[in-house]
Amino acid sequence: MKRGLSVTDPPDLPFRPLVVIELAKDVKAETRDWLVKKIVDKKKDGGCQLLIKSFIISEEEEETIFLVGASPKRLLLGAESLGLVKECEDGYMRPFIYNNRREYTHFIEGDEDFLTMAECQCIIKQDLDNLRARDEKSVPGYPHSKLYPGKSIFRRLQTSGLVIQVFPLHDKEDLKRLTHRWYRQIRVAFQPIDQIRRYFGDTIGLYFGFLEYFTLALIPMALLGVPYYFFAWEDYDKYVVFATLNLVWSTVILEIWKRYCSSMTYRWGTLIMKKEFEEPRPGFHGVLGINPVTGREEPTYSSLRRTLRIYLVSVPFVCGCLYLSIYVMKIYFDLETMALDYDREQQSTFSSLLLYVPSIIYAIVIEIMNRIYKYAAEILTSWENHRLESSYQNHLVLKVLVFNIVNCFSSLFYIAFVMCDLKLLRQSLATLLITSQILNQFVESLLPYWMQKRSNRKIKSKVKTLKLDTEFALLEQIHLEKHMDAYPGTFDDYLELFLLFGYVSLFSCVYPLAAVFAVLNNLTELYSDALKMCRVFKRPFSAPAAGIGVWMLAFETMGIIAVITNCTLLGMSPQVNAMFPDSKMDLILTVAAIEHTLLALKFILAFVIPDQSYEVQVKVARLEFESLEALKQKQTLVMFWHFCHSGPRPFLYGIIDISVNTG
Amino acid sequence: MKRGLSVTDPPDLPFRPLVVIELAKDVKAETRDWLVKKIVDKKKDGGCQLLIKSFIISEEEEETIFLVGASPKRLLLGAESLGLVKECEDGYMRPFIYNNRREYTHFIEGDEDFLTMAECQCIIKQDLDNLRARDEKSVPGYPHSKLYPGKSIFRRLQTSGLVIQVFPLHDKEDLKRLTHRWYRQIRVAFQPIDQIRRYFGDTIGLYFGFLEYFTLALIPMALLGVPYYFFAWEDYDKYVVFATLNLVWSTVILEIWKRYCSSMTYRWGTLIMKKEFEEPRPGFHGVLGINPVTGREEPTYSSLRRTLRIYLVSVPFVCGCLYLSIYVMKIYFDLETMALDYDREQQSTFSSLLLYVPSIIYAIVIEIMNRIYKYAAEILTSWENHRLESSYQNHLVLKVLVFNIVNCFSSLFYIAFVMCDLKLLRQSLATLLITSQILNQFVESLLPYWMQKRSNRKIKSKVKTLKLDTEFALLEQIHLEKHMDAYPGTFDDYLELFLLFGYVSLFSCVYPLAAVFAVLNNLTELYSDALKMCRVFKRPFSAPAAGIGVWMLAFETMGIIAVITNCTLLGMSPQVNAMFPDSKMDLILTVAAIEHTLLALKFILAFVIPDQSYEVQVKVARLEFESLEALKQKQTLVMFWHFCHSGPRPFLYGIIDISVNTG
Repeated sequence: MKRGLSVTDPPDLPFRPLVVIELAKDVKAETRDWLVKKIVDKKKDGGCQLLIKSFIISEEEEETIFLVGASPKRLLLGAESLGLVKECEDGYMRPFIYNNRREYTHFIEGDEDFLTMAECQCIIKQDLDNLRARDEKSVPGYPHSKLYPGKSIFRRLQTSGLVIQVFPLHDKEDLKRLTHRWYRQIRVAFQPIDQIRRYFGDTIGLYFGFLEYFTLALIPMALLGVPYYFFAWEDYDKYVVFATLNLVWSTVILEIWKRYCSSMTYRWGTLIMKKEFEEPRPGFHGVLGINPVTGREEPTYSSLRRTLRIYLVSVPFVCGCLYLSIYVMKIYFDLETMALDYDREQQSTFSSLLLYVPSIIYAIVIEIMNRIYKYAAEILTSWENHRLESSYQNHLVLKVLVFNIVNCFSSLFYIAFVMCDLKLLRQSLATLLITSQILNQFVESLLPYWMQKRSNRKIKSKVKTLKLDTEFALLEQIHLEKHMDAYPGTFDDYLELFLLFGYVSLFSCVYPLAAVFAVLNNLTELYSDALKMCRVFKRPFSAPAAGIGVWMLAFETMGIIAVITNCTLLGMSPQVNAMFPDSKMDLILTVAAIEHTLLALKFILAFVIPDQSYEVQVKVARLEFESLEALKQKQTLVMFWHFCHSGPRPFLYGIIDISVNTG
Repeated sequence: MKRGLSVTDPPDLPFRPLVVIELAKDVKAETRDWLVKKIVDKKKDGGCQLLIKSFIISEEEEETIFLVGASPKRLLLGAESLGLVKECEDGYMRPFIYNNRREYTHFIEGDEDFLTMAECQCIIKQDLDNLRARDEKSVPGYPHSKLYPGKSIFRRLQTSGLVIQVFPLHDKEDLKRLTHRWYRQIRVAFQPIDQIRRYFGDTIGLYFGFLEYFTLALIPMALLGVPYYFFAWEDYDKYVVFATLNLVWSTVILEIWKRYCSSMTYRWGTLIMKKEFEEPRPGFHGVLGINPVTGREEPTYSSLRRTLRIYLVSVPFVCGCLYLSIYVMKIYFDLETMALDYDREQQSTFSSLLLYVPSIIYAIVIEIMNRIYKYAAEILTSWENHRLESSYQNHLVLKVLVFNIVNCFSSLFYIAFVMCDLKLLRQSLATLLITSQILNQFVESLLPYWMQKRSNRKIKSKVKTLKLDTEFALLEQIHLEKHMDAYPGTFDDYLELFLLFGYVSLFSCVYPLAAVFAVLNNLTELYSDALKMCRVFKRPFSAPAAGIGVWMLAFETMGIIAVITNCTLLGMSPQVNAMFPDSKMDLILTVAAIEHTLLALKFILAFVIPDQSYEVQVKVARLEFESLEALKQKQTLVMFWHFCHSGPRPFLYGIIDISVNTG
């Protein structure tokens, strides 16, 4: 039975639920009241100044759910304090300032569409996270949940298990419109990136933007690859041409992406958004001390100890795993040889089927190792106890990347450069591309989607038994969404793209169809990721992002490795070898010289092509100029004031005396 | 005869002359009066609000000299608007704010030592440069010197030739103290970098800091080089050890310099100083248009045309010069062979002396080509018409660097890698190091010093004939300084260090005494540069700098070239060759593998070692945090204000309803 479901809004302030807070089942009433007071209290009293609506559902289990919203004005002021950037009437992007609100494009007083729902939810999230204890020593009712002045209340409530989750609500109408434009229609069209970003926030928008860009960038390579594969397989000239093209392609697409990305994030406002001061990440622990930067009391952890942990434990661990991975690869090649020998001896159907077994086992083992390693890397990086989420993420990405590169590419490198068997290389590459693609789509999206559908049906029938008439739709929606899995972030998706980029840029001169498979993979990926975002996972909080961050570095590093690999493959090709019949030495020296020249060219290209287009540069410079001017004006005003108020004696501004001719 | 020399200061405001403005000889009185009024006028009337004192000297030639100063308060406010950073009592560096002046270390009201003289001069320079026309259409008295609103008056006066020069005065007492501590005592000691920076400003301070650091960094290599040279010439192990060491050394010293430099510039306040918006450089010309960034009217020039000029003229020109340089080198080697052949035929004293002729001719030709090329590069870069001084400098440095690297190193590379004659390489390197060192010290410092001394004597005797009793010393000083040459900047000095770094990092495994010569060169360089700064050239205006800028990039690039060269030299050494008696191919592959590993290691090292020390990182973060907090507080206040003034109806902050049990 519903125990409480009412909201006493003034009629002119319609309450729009934005964020859901799910409390633990047995939270004391005292704590609940305190939390509500905190959220509703005025800013000057240390509160959040938000609107709240509470449900207490089902008799036996004391399940409490808060719906949090805010008045339009509160949201606009929140946007100012978050530093959101919006377009002005004169076409420039500027940080939103409430006082100048009428200067911004699309701003209509009283209209709530100026801020997107994702932005409103981000503002509320930000305010809830910044709700800090003042003089409370602990959470009321739970003396073991210690608080100290400045401690984030929601962080403590979450670590104590009193708050189970905080998540943003979907907007059913918006979502319907989005899914319709995004993946319901079967037609050739660009993705609605701007709408995706409006709905899911910048990080997700950027991911889909990158996915689309990468797919488009692959198309020329794929178009080139098909005829090349079928008609000109062993033609020397085209082989060299393809490797060179590959190399220019991998450099140029990354440079163009930077420019495209900066134009996109400028349009979204995140390129020029000021970064917030980063708070310690939730998992960070340490002795209470004074943070030298903020001067606030917070857990501190010696950076020397962290460095020691990284270099004495994590680095050896990663090296050990790399060794293990290479060891497993060797076993795979041993098995392969054994299977070959056996097949040569027996020549039966069984033995020829057995030939595929090592590859299949190895593919499965690689997948398992990747997953175990990622789990271990997460534990290890947690144990390194990084203060900031960003530094945690960087260390994690680095660990996982290094291992994935070795694990996925080592066998290919071994085949290419130790066994020198280009035919086997082609074959392995094809197997790898096709199997990993099928596996990924299935494990990542279709399986969860199907499981989601089943559990949804259960929940729906359960909610129906509660027989709530009023606001039934909303309650059903909350129940459905709160049981969805949390969105795990874009890490795995980027990793997949990264590996694809690796396959194409490293080996497509040997196996030109790689680009074709990559394009196909990306097209299904587009669809399955969209499904994942809209149907399978909880809506994630939007987070401002100005670029794809550490992944850019990863792609660029892969670009450099690609140059080296392509040059070596070129040097190994029988056609090039035929050009130097007398001396292997000249061949190697020539290849090395070409490689160094290309690397130099790559660096010069990256240096010469500006990362932002001319228009974006001018617009960003304009904003900087404006803020400098504003500062100066302020100072000139201060200066005036000083001169005018500098005491009872009139101040002498300057003394001139140009004597007339006295000679 | 002195025509006017008086200043009507109030007794409590002693006038301290800081900057000298020399007018052209026949400037009209009308113009003079207008300029003085502009400089002395209040800020709100568009003036500079500075103090001024004028001399009109010698009857026949209407020579006018202005001495510009400012009241202590004006200077402090100027420091605030320039954004100077000073140390606070709590040990943190913060931008100076006049209102909080009592919070800064060493600030004593009424004491003028808080700002250094160099800073005061920089403030005045800044204000004079920013003196802009309001409604004047031209300079009064000179209708051809056009002005438009916002045009810098001093820029126009200088381009019209009405102002001959603006330069800061020396402080004789300070200079005496500085020279005494700096180079008058013969003893082993560090340079007084902080005093040098106080007197000459950040750019010069940084140059001497870098020179000292570089010398210290060379010492271990020099100490290692001497015994190696004399005892272990052909010992294989040490050869490899030396090359590896060389490589680590060149990476590590650059990384440590970055940290050292950031600590130094943090202490000086320039690391966290905000950059001013850059005005067009004096030589920039174009059609009057609207600058899209500032919205102000100023000369504009199409960036497409500039790009075309760069790629269609400058790049081919540079390539042509490089070709010429290599062609000259080939002639040199032809001459060398001819001389050798002749000597072998004749075997006379004359013919053996003739052996040295090609080297000497080549050394002189290189020097001449460098100078001509630099001149051409300056003209070309001017013609490219860059809007900003910084971009002009970058393009110039790049042009000159590329040419100098090829010109100075191509013969060494040719000897090492084409002729494969390591003995000749040693010999050429020694000749080059010794001759260039002697030439440079002589041409750069001793010759100008001697000429300076002679001309000083002349001027002194001329000034004496003027028979001025009052302020004689000051007038003499002005006359002496105004005839000194302007300081040409640190370009040539850095270039010299860069070439030295090249010799040592590229070839010191072949010729270990290179480092010894480099240390000796630096020691004399230290002395001669100090002499140059204090005695030969006009005092330069101090300019804030947070690092050595584009030179860092140049040194890092040289570090990468050094890795490649060292590895190749290693592969060519007979000892390493002896290890691979059977297969040259294995040798080359091994060397290539080592080279790639070392390059990767270098990049990883550069990535892992943070550019700032932990303390500086914390302090910089602290400052950023403070400014974010200040911004937030401002916004919270604004928010309060909005809520308090949001209309007659009391605003509802939030609505709570937790229903009690109604079941």
